[in-house]
Amino acid sequence: MNPEPAFDLNAYLKERKQRIDEALDRYLPGEEKSPAELFKAMRYSLFAGGKRIRPILCLAAAETVGQSAFPDALLPVACALEYIHTYSLIHDDLPAMDNDDYRRGNPTSHKVFGEALAILAGDALLTEAFSLMARVDLQVGLAAENRLRVISEIATAAGAFGMVGGQVDDVQSEGKPGNLDLLNQIHARKTGAMIVVSLRAGAILAGGTESDLSALTDYGHKIGLVFQIADDILNVEGDRELLGKNTGSDATRGKMTFPNLLGLEYSRQKAFSLVEEAISDLDVFDSRATPLRRLARYFVERRF
Amino acid sequence: MNPEPAFDLNAYLKERKQRIDEALDRYLPGEEKSPAELFKAMRYSLFAGGKRIRPILCLAAAETVGQSAFPDALLPVACALEYIHTYSLIHDDLPAMDNDDYRRGNPTSHKVFGEALAILAGDALLTEAFSLMARVDLQVGLAAENRLRVISEIATAAGAFGMVGGQVDDVQSEGKPGNLDLLNQIHARKTGAMIVVSLRAGAILAGGTESDLSALTDYGHKIGLVFQIADDILNVEGDRELLGKNTGSDATRGKMTFPNLLGLEYSRQKAFSLVEEAISDLDVFDSRATPLRRLARYFVERRF
Repeated sequence: MNPEPAFDLNAYLKERKQRIDEALDRYLPGEEKSPAELFKAMRYSLFAGGKRIRPILCLAAAETVGQSAFPDALLPVACALEYIHTYSLIHDDLPAMDNDDYRRGNPTSHKVFGEALAILAGDALLTEAFSLMARVDLQVGLAAENRLRVISEIATAAGAFGMVGGQVDDVQSEGKPGNLDLLNQIHARKTGAMIVVSLRAGAILAGGTESDLSALTDYGHKIGLVFQIADDILNVEGDRELLGKNTGSDATRGKMTFPNLLGLEYSRQKAFSLVEEAISDLDVFDSRATPLRRLARYFVERRF
Repeated sequence: MNPEPAFDLNAYLKERKQRIDEALDRYLPGEEKSPAELFKAMRYSLFAGGKRIRPILCLAAAETVGQSAFPDALLPVACALEYIHTYSLIHDDLPAMDNDDYRRGNPTSHKVFGEALAILAGDALLTEAFSLMARVDLQVGLAAENRLRVISEIATAAGAFGMVGGQVDDVQSEGKPGNLDLLNQIHARKTGAMIVVSLRAGAILAGGTESDLSALTDYGHKIGLVFQIADDILNVEGDRELLGKNTGSDATRGKMTFPNLLGLEYSRQKAFSLVEEAISDLDVFDSRATPLRRLARYFVERRF
């Protein structure tokens, strides 16, 4: 075990979110570009109150294995992770999928811009994510081979074997009998794969060793699951106002969830024990892993 | 001018299509992978009778600037271009967009698999395109910097500044008064950008010079436009059976087209003169550019 020095998680999250938001604003043009409506739709969802968890994990992993401050050259990949996350939310909310009217208290993209533009804004965010990761002018000093590996790992995590595959399983599982193995598999793909690859991407770019990557992968699988269990619990008992969306919607829709299959109390216990296991996965690192240690607890304590 | 040696374009296209189809079949798993329905939907559209024009242009450009036979290491990028093209067709056909029931004589993806899976199959094909381009095991011998540049250029051509932007302009222009500048801009983005980048990608990977790239870009802009004018003409007077989709649909929908704005006869003349200009752009190359020269004529002569 490593001693945990004094550390203000809230201040850390706030500072990181601000730097990421500034970078996102620099990278994605506004309505001065044509087609104005497309860029407006992309920015509407990108700046709709996201907590920037995936970019923050990416940068924290880089600092855990590398120097104490992450280089600016990592920001494009960190932001690309947020583009991909945002595209997935836009498409998941579509009428043909979850048909959600609100997210984080705001009308969803297709409610504001119509279905065609929502589909295209999602497509554009996904595509621009790869454009950003491959940009030659912004990532000076990062090894080209590492950058290709990161693009490859992120594409795999986001695609048919990862997030998109998980969404297909999720859509197809609605209304079917519960099954814990299937539920774990859905979440490992749908949420877990992108959480894990966010950590790995930061570590690869910062020159982490294979053993660093392996420890971060173990940690990531666990906090990815914690994140999902917490989401499911919040959907049952969360504060509608804080969440900015309807609670109880999973039950109405007959969705397979952890509280459904394991009960609320056991789901909560499971999440807490996964957090402790995730923190032990970080024992190989020194105090540079403090943010990741504190983030693990934050995931299970969050109320929205 | 360069002499054009004896060259059998049909045999060339057939041989290229076969090698590309074999590579596509190797790269994209079938229903043995989970979720089976997703891979089934991806393959359904990928193997629905595409002519593989973009991969063929990519490989032909590589041969024009490099060695006489393209290396196998170029196949992943060539196939990724077809993944991206296929995803764009699936999403364009959706009810919220063009609402097309048939393409190349087959029911469109959403008619067979439902809207949710059609959206996700498109998302997955787009994502797997980047996965394929970044794969570390298949592209041995290609410089990492060139590979990053190709990913960057393809993402830019496919995204908000290219194909997706063109589709937004296209959707928003329906039923509005015709305007040749806008029509040219829509097609430069919607079709032209991917045609141009297919040529550039092959040339970059084969070690082409900036002046090679510039000549191929000029050629690409012109044949991209030819391709679109020919498409518009076929929509008016094409053979429904050969095309495998309804003709006359552009007019019904009030779509802005070249025959609408310029008349059929002038559109045809315009296409023929663009072909001759495109062929002159290739004057800087020797007989290795023969396939590209013949392809330019093929685009204006095609009947489906």
